[in-house]
Parts: sequence; C-alpha cells; structure tokens
Amino acid sequence: MESDKKESVIVLASGGLDSTVAIYLLKTGGFNPVPLFVDYGQVHRKEVQCLTILCEELDLEYKHIDVPGLFRYSNSGLIKGTKIESGADSVVENRNMVLLSIAVSVAASMGIKYVSYAAHKSDNLVYPDCRWEFMESFAKTARLSLDTKDFKFMMPFRDKTKANIVTLGQELGVDFSKTWSCYTAGKIHCGICPTCVERKKAFKVAGIEDPTEYEE
Amino acid sequence: MESDKKESVIVLASGGLDSTVAIYLLKTGGFNPVPLFVDYGQVHRKEVQCLTILCEELDLEYKHIDVPGLFRYSNSGLIKGTKIESGADSVVENRNMVLLSIAVSVAASMGIKYVSYAAHKSDNLVYPDCRWEFMESFAKTARLSLDTKDFKFMMPFRDKTKANIVTLGQELGVDFSKTWSCYTAGKIHCGICPTCVERKKAFKVAGIEDPTEYEE
Repeated sequence: MESDKKESVIVLASGGLDSTVAIYLLKTGGFNPVPLFVDYGQVHRKEVQCLTILCEELDLEYKHIDVPGLFRYSNSGLIKGTKIESGADSVVENRNMVLLSIAVSVAASMGIKYVSYAAHKSDNLVYPDCRWEFMESFAKTARLSLDTKDFKFMMPFRDKTKANIVTLGQELGVDFSKTWSCYTAGKIHCGICPTCVERKKAFKVAGIEDPTEYEE
Repeated sequence: MESDKKESVIVLASGGLDSTVAIYLLKTGGFNPVPLFVDYGQVHRKEVQCLTILCEELDLEYKHIDVPGLFRYSNSGLIKGTKIESGADSVVENRNMVLLSIAVSVAASMGIKYVSYAAHKSDNLVYPDCRWEFMESFAKTARLSLDTKDFKFMMPFRDKTKANIVTLGQELGVDFSKTWSCYTAGKIHCGICPTCVERKKAFKVAGIEDPTEYEE
C-alpha cells in the first residue's frame, strides 16, 4: 500500500496556529505527521483540546507526555500563572531545547527519523531558541547523541513570518478557529496578551479574515 | 562572607558512584554543588535514598524534578522494568541530552552558570552521549539557546575510567557503601547486572576494597 511508505515525522505540537499549519503542510507533502504534545503545566490548557480536535479531523494519532513538574523551578508566567505583559515574561528557560530533546527521544524510541519544529522568523528576536543557528547546532548534537547520521530535522517556517504562515494555512484549508494562541486560560482568546496581539496582526498583514473570537 | 562567593554548579546526580564523587570533587574545589535529581520512573529507586543521605551529610540542598512519564515511549529495561543483560538494554533513547537540557533549564531559572556531568571514559563505547564530542556540541547548543556566552559545562571525568573515579573518591573520603549502582530494585546490589559488574571491576582495578554488599 502506498500509505505504508510514508515517512513518519514527530512534530512538536501545541494546538497553536504554527504547529497546526506545520501538520497540514507535512500531511499534504506526503509525510505521516505524528504530533507530540508535551504537557509541562502550561496554564493555557485550551491547547490540548484544539490538538485533540485537529487529530480527529486529520485522522492522526498523537503522542502525549504528561510532565507537569518539568519546569517547576522556572520563573515564567506560563508556569507560575502570573501576568504576561511582554514576550519576555513568557520565556520558559531553555524550554525548546528540552522539548526538542524529548521529541528526539520519542522519535528514536519509535524508530522515526524525522523531527519537525514550527518556529518561525517572527519569533527570532524574543526567542533565541527559535533561530536556525540554534536548530543546526541542536541537530548536530542530537546526531552525536544517537551516534547516527540518519536523523533529520525540519524547520519549515525558518524563513517565514507568522503572516506567511496564516497565508499558507489558508491555502491548505486550516480552520484557524480551532487553533489556540492565547496565554490566558479563558473560554475565548483574550485579545490583549502578546501572543493574541501577534495573532491578530498576522491575519491583518496577510489580508485574511480572522475567525478568532476575542474578548477585547 | 567567603562562602557567599562560591560559584554554584548544577550537578546531574543519581545517587550513584560517579555523580557522588563529582559532588565531593566540586565541594572540595571550592564550588557549591547543587545536585539535581530527575526522577523519570527509573526502576532502581534506591538512588534517591542514597542522594538524600549524601546531601544531609554534605549539607547540600538538592533539587528534585518528578517526571515519571518523561520516557513513556522508551524501550529501555530501565523504564519497562524488563531484564537488563547488557549495557545496550539499559539505554534510554536520548536520555542524557534530555536530562542535560533540563539541567540547563534549572540552572538558567536559578541564575546559575555552571552545569556538571559525571560521564566518564569507560562509558564511551556503549553510550555515545557520554563522549566529549557530544558534550562540546551540547554546550555550544545550550549557549545558543540561552543567547549567552556566559554558561559553562564541566565534565571532570572525561579522561577518567571508573577505576580512576574510585581512586579519586577514596582520596576525597567518599563512603561508597552509601552509593547505588545496581539496575535492579533489590535491598542490596544484585552483583550480576552490567552496572554491578562494572562497579566490582572498578574497585578491583583500583586496588581498593569494595564495601558494597552484593547478593552474588
């Protein structure tokens, strides 16, 4: 069967806009995306609900690692539940390196040779671990760790802005109303936290109608 | 006060022989070692008891991250509780890269600039993530992740065998009977699993009396 030949790819997934578009992109590109959700006690729990709906719609089985104490010493607002007024308040120290290392572990455990990461160009200034230079060095380290050259990393949005991702998502048929970005744990997006502001702006710049319900 | 000037170092600690000697070495060398125990559901629970005793004796406060599901997809005997007949059966896929990334996260959260890792030369053949080449690449990646050059890694046993570590431990006054190596969860060391065999051999090669109680 043709489908048996598809390469599987572990995709770090959050139920957010970026990783959802990445999953659509990989599926359209002939891969078998295997979303990996790491529940590290982030306060915006809506993410996992969005991811569950996505996986039902695309008929994907997602992997779930439940480690609420993983970043217990962190000062981040995402962990402590304190107010996030700027991107810097949301930084969980070394988070993406930890999550990517876990993704490599899961991939190696399952005999999967690809890991995909939906970091994008607009993240570069606030988050150094969203830069390509970091990703290249991480990939080299992971290959040394596993003692193999046969392990590949994908960062499909490395040269894309969030507005580019919105445009691509629309082309791929993504239902953006079923993705979650907000840092708060409300019923709908707050509309004023840094990631809501970024989300609104991306739709505006892309010239695409934003289907998200915002409080403000 | 003099003691206020001591540099703190996060030490990945397991209650085993190697990391215990590393903690003694750092303390003797004028550092303030901060042991970090990551409980990832490893079956040999004696480790944490040994670490608790060590920290009481040296008056150290250890950090504890409790993440039993961290490697739930692993095939390792350490996670599944299946029999470990060779070093290869004990390999948890990408474990050390995950644990070191967590150590960097804790260090960054606490404003600590050093991380120490007790991997040694005898580990090199079975575990690629105990090699210096891996550690160098890891250190570079972590500095990119944190966007700082001001972060250092120590691998004090990179050129030492386990027998060298036993010799060093004796010089430093380590009570080896209060360290745990065995992969099984018995009351005393089994004496026949790969790590018990390695432990016995290290004492023999070092010409130092082994105070460990073994079943066999």
